[in-house]
Amino acid sequence: MTRVAVLGAGGYAGGEVLRLLLAHPAVEVVQATSEQHAGKRLDFPHPHLRGLATPRFSPHDALEPCDVLLSCMPSGELIRRWPQVSARAGRIIDLSADFRLESTEHARWYPRAPRPLDMPEFVYGLPEWTGARLKDARFVAVPGCMAHAALLALLPLVRAGLVRPEVVVDAKTGSSGGGATPDRSSHHPERASALRCYRAVGHRHTGEIEGATERLAGVRPVVHFSATAVPSVRGVLATVHAFAARKLEDASEPLRALASTYREHPFVHVLRANASASPFPEPAPLAGTNHCDLAVEVDAERGRIVVNAALDNLVKGAAGTAVHALNLMLGRPETEGLGFRGLHPL
Amino acid sequence: MTRVAVLGAGGYAGGEVLRLLLAHPAVEVVQATSEQHAGKRLDFPHPHLRGLATPRFSPHDALEPCDVLLSCMPSGELIRRWPQVSARAGRIIDLSADFRLESTEHARWYPRAPRPLDMPEFVYGLPEWTGARLKDARFVAVPGCMAHAALLALLPLVRAGLVRPEVVVDAKTGSSGGGATPDRSSHHPERASALRCYRAVGHRHTGEIEGATERLAGVRPVVHFSATAVPSVRGVLATVHAFAARKLEDASEPLRALASTYREHPFVHVLRANASASPFPEPAPLAGTNHCDLAVEVDAERGRIVVNAALDNLVKGAAGTAVHALNLMLGRPETEGLGFRGLHPL
Amino acid sequence: MTRVAVLGAGGYAGGEVLRLLLAHPAVEVVQATSEQHAGKRLDFPHPHLRGLATPRFSPHDALEPCDVLLSCMPSGELIRRWPQVSARAGRIIDLSADFRLESTEHARWYPRAPRPLDMPEFVYGLPEWTGARLKDARFVAVPGCMAHAALLALLPLVRAGLVRPEVVVDAKTGSSGGGATPDRSSHHPERASALRCYRAVGHRHTGEIEGATERLAGVRPVVHFSATAVPSVRGVLATVHAFAARKLEDASEPLRALASTYREHPFVHVLRANASASPFPEPAPLAGTNHCDLAVEVDAERGRIVVNAALDNLVKGAAGTAVHALNLMLGRPETEGLGFRGLHPL
Amino acid sequence: MTRVAVLGAGGYAGGEVLRLLLAHPAVEVVQATSEQHAGKRLDFPHPHLRGLATPRFSPHDALEPCDVLLSCMPSGELIRRWPQVSARAGRIIDLSADFRLESTEHARWYPRAPRPLDMPEFVYGLPEWTGARLKDARFVAVPGCMAHAALLALLPLVRAGLVRPEVVVDAKTGSSGGGATPDRSSHHPERASALRCYRAVGHRHTGEIEGATERLAGVRPVVHFSATAVPSVRGVLATVHAFAARKLEDASEPLRALASTYREHPFVHVLRANASASPFPEPAPLAGTNHCDLAVEVDAERGRIVVNAALDNLVKGAAGTAVHALNLMLGRPETEGLGFRGLHPL
Repeated sequence: MTRVAVLGAGGYAGGEVLRLLLAHPAVEVVQATSEQHAGKRLDFPHPHLRGLATPRFSPHDALEPCDVLLSCMPSGELIRRWPQVSARAGRIIDLSADFRLESTEHARWYPRAPRPLDMPEFVYGLPEWTGARLKDARFVAVPGCMAHAALLALLPLVRAGLVRPEVVVDAKTGSSGGGATPDRSSHHPERASALRCYRAVGHRHTGEIEGATERLAGVRPVVHFSATAVPSVRGVLATVHAFAARKLEDASEPLRALASTYREHPFVHVLRANASASPFPEPAPLAGTNHCDLAVEVDAERGRIVVNAALDNLVKGAAGTAVHALNLMLGRPETEGLGFRGLHPL
Repeated sequence: MTRVAVLGAGGYAGGEVLRLLLAHPAVEVVQATSEQHAGKRLDFPHPHLRGLATPRFSPHDALEPCDVLLSCMPSGELIRRWPQVSARAGRIIDLSADFRLESTEHARWYPRAPRPLDMPEFVYGLPEWTGARLKDARFVAVPGCMAHAALLALLPLVRAGLVRPEVVVDAKTGSSGGGATPDRSSHHPERASALRCYRAVGHRHTGEIEGATERLAGVRPVVHFSATAVPSVRGVLATVHAFAARKLEDASEPLRALASTYREHPFVHVLRANASASPFPEPAPLAGTNHCDLAVEVDAERGRIVVNAALDNLVKGAAGTAVHALNLMLGRPETEGLGFRGLHPL
Repeated sequence: MTRVAVLGAGGYAGGEVLRLLLAHPAVEVVQATSEQHAGKRLDFPHPHLRGLATPRFSPHDALEPCDVLLSCMPSGELIRRWPQVSARAGRIIDLSADFRLESTEHARWYPRAPRPLDMPEFVYGLPEWTGARLKDARFVAVPGCMAHAALLALLPLVRAGLVRPEVVVDAKTGSSGGGATPDRSSHHPERASALRCYRAVGHRHTGEIEGATERLAGVRPVVHFSATAVPSVRGVLATVHAFAARKLEDASEPLRALASTYREHPFVHVLRANASASPFPEPAPLAGTNHCDLAVEVDAERGRIVVNAALDNLVKGAAGTAVHALNLMLGRPETEGLGFRGLHPL
Repeated sequence: MTRVAVLGAGGYAGGEVLRLLLAHPAVEVVQATSEQHAGKRLDFPHPHLRGLATPRFSPHDALEPCDVLLSCMPSGELIRRWPQVSARAGRIIDLSADFRLESTEHARWYPRAPRPLDMPEFVYGLPEWTGARLKDARFVAVPGCMAHAALLALLPLVRAGLVRPEVVVDAKTGSSGGGATPDRSSHHPERASALRCYRAVGHRHTGEIEGATERLAGVRPVVHFSATAVPSVRGVLATVHAFAARKLEDASEPLRALASTYREHPFVHVLRANASASPFPEPAPLAGTNHCDLAVEVDAERGRIVVNAALDNLVKGAAGTAVHALNLMLGRPETEGLGFRGLHPL
């Protein structure tokens, strides 16, 4: 059994990490930390863990040595605690934004929490694209949830040379991505009916998508990214509006690029018209799963390729990808502990 | 592997039965029928089954012999098709209302679909209370979802002699209990904001609760049942307002009655104040699970005992209990195939 | 023009009071106070007031003399500030719980904010029942929203001698009643799917309903009150389960009691079966209005009378009733400034 | 009093037209037709009209002469019934898509319901842009709701020469735009959690926006339009991603173009940062109003201008604009009957 600790386990991503790891056959959760909930049972903030035999939360400083550490602390915290944390963990998977970008890019998008130069680079944990490198990785950074969805949609098209390197990504997101700390904009009466483009420009996933596309598909695009809050709790839908590099008659070429990319990958599905009563990617039936649904359509006359990508921001967009990466790092079956198929209707 | 067929598998309960059985280690789904979807893949109406290797839907009349049959057809249909269906299945678990009540009671509450007298009685499939009889049962009737929640709350109090035999059950329910067929009252613009006591009196679960309480706890109560539609898809919350048979100082006696009843039962939890950031039974974190959460409070001055019971109407209230009963019938571990713990937040 | 000040106008009830008064033809809003928003425009926290020419928020202590003061401060605040506030206002309408109960009862239900004995009694502002006294009232207390709904349903039955003096009130409520201050239980991811009986016993509206029924219908009932949070923002549905004092054949007598009580009252409607595609009281189409919908059904066999009452907790349950009372106090037409009919669908 | 008839008044836009007209001081509703509800009271399908003295629904064929007719029939119906309808009405305002496009364009986007060549052209009813022509118009076509929002955002930028003539419009919409007829995709369990790009390409508002921009701002753009269903009932948010025609340092120029365009127009507001606790255009506080909120942001580095436009699809996007046009046609004050300011929170 691999001994895993979860740092910052009192929030929503932490709760999902715990749900997945507590049911994982190859893992023992040896410690879970939370400043706010130290001393309490894991099911105090996480009702879905009710009835499980588990340890109690420790404070961060009580962290003991472990084989693998998953950090769910807010951005900036792992950088700040790096010496202590890295001394106790053989391998680290970070779910924050601290190590998603290369150093120079990071300082630009996260100027308040720059990375000291002596910190290691993390492998970008997008398993369908960096899986080979994850096997031997010591440090892994889980992508941002909206960047993750956008990249799964965009990368195959860029790599296939089908699109011009300038895209609009219009991402829609539920409230859970904002975390477990209440504030005015997440107060239920203010948020319940929200349909609010809360970050029209300047969102930090812009830099993440641009950088990762350059590294993984060889072309640095200009990404026009906006994020809109919608009236739901879980789920991201990223609508990628791309423009054909050459004349297309229909969606067959982009569809082929997507389908061939993900054919061997168990967590990404490319939906086809008429195969389902609802052939559109939607987060709802993916809630709790590590799956991403994609679909592509083409406006041949105007030269636009639209790829929609749906996923659960807390699972495929966070905790599930962390476990997926962990499986690869440990040489376990890719889908171990990630078998849940979702619910419908929900 | 037990060969199981699912009759009427195109609806919501059917979809959840398929989800559970397709992942069940001791079961092979040999057939799934649907008139509407005959010939289509199982994931056509059920997006959460996407990517699974499965059979296609057959029409009902193509039913072939099987070890156990689960019927998810609407009420009245299994009665109507009884000769053909019962000839093909060694054992039958019915999720409709056709066999929940005793014959005389049934005709009164379901006058349009009375049971011929030569039909067998079904064992009432409330595993925490009828588990011993389920092991040998040939025919099992899964309780109605709101009756199920109310009975789990009420039976321990009645059996312990703590309450007078007249109770108010105010049940709140999401829209999925109404099934997959669109109509005006379930049209999204009409239903999305609904807070509507759609059945203040005369609901058929009245008779089911009265009858089952008499059979299982030895006292026939008068049940005052009302059902209110709330703005959600999944989930039932049954608020049972009972009245103390004698003076109580606090909730300790009723709490003891509930706790001792369910101590050995893995799917029923009795919540206690202060043990959780949210110590109230709620359906949301139970979505997809076979669990029921209970909590009790007492107004000592006015002599009222309130028990709230939450469950997922499609799982603990339908498909999950069917699989739970199947496990008991097959001598399998009670929780097999029912390990999902739920999601939070949702 | 009557010069009106609104104390504590930065919250949700305050926002609705402002919306109604700013469009009221006989009223001038001379001042609106808010500690949190002092110095800001009224539309800073209240987006629906956008584009109106209005004053800015003052701090509470800057209150100047006015003809009528409406206080929307939290419970306890008006008691605490009574000397200063009462010196500046000829007449006061209070939307908090400070003056809803008689003194002795108040101290029992609100022990943290008892009323000094030298404070005046307020007239209970339930216009359909206390309208005659409101005309000359100097001080008016607006009822609690759930108590308001329950009383409109219950009082006619008690007065007509139709029911026994022991009732169950199962109230369902949206999140806006909890106010504008964020906390964990109102954090969107925690509240969005909530179906949670958050106050099964001991709710303070219990005492309000018992006391007001005694004063207004002459009989002190035992009220068994529970409150359940449902996934919506606005609206209350109170389900009153009452028990017939004598054998009833059908709903005609209770219906007559309700209909005759409210025949002349423009804001209370008694719904009848078959008169509408949706003949059930629901808060959604009443959002923003000062209306309450009632319907009654009877289980003749079990002797139960169920009255459902729906209203908008922020309008009929708060701001609208305050304006209704103001109209009566000023001798204006009862419906002035309260003409909005609601939206459907919503 | 102008005698107005409403054709096809049983649906959602019809219900809102009736709500507005029944409270309009210069209008008498002389007839309302509905095939489905003929003979029933207006409040049978429209609960928010409860308690009003109104006529009953007539069948379409019973239409009698009137001064102005508002048609809310589905697209294709007014074309089909043109000879009979036009013979009875002096002036016609159509809320369907039948007359929004010029003839040649119409046939291309609506090939199933082409317009015979002898039908008159309708004035496009976008009051802030075509108000002068509406005064004398005999026939007016109300814009599509998503096109309406997009045009209010886009036209000032195009006219000011600030943007290149190729834009992405990513529109988000509630369920009420789909009308009152139930089907699978609008069945509550399927629609309640939907976040679904149901029309990624080929949406007919594409042609409407392209054509109207050419006519009203002098440049024909390429419009890349997608529509996404979000979990709400009312409201449209159109996110217009445009690209600066020249280098911009910040949002001041586009902001000036928007602000100067709408300064004199009472129903369009341009939001500014820091002026509100929530400075983003959102449909929720606009529900029931005839208002549109706009805000603009600029990514100077990447040359993108984002304008978000929010409105209520049934009011500003349908019934309210019809009444606005009616006011202009009748020489009445522009805001008459359209004074409702919206609700918050909702």
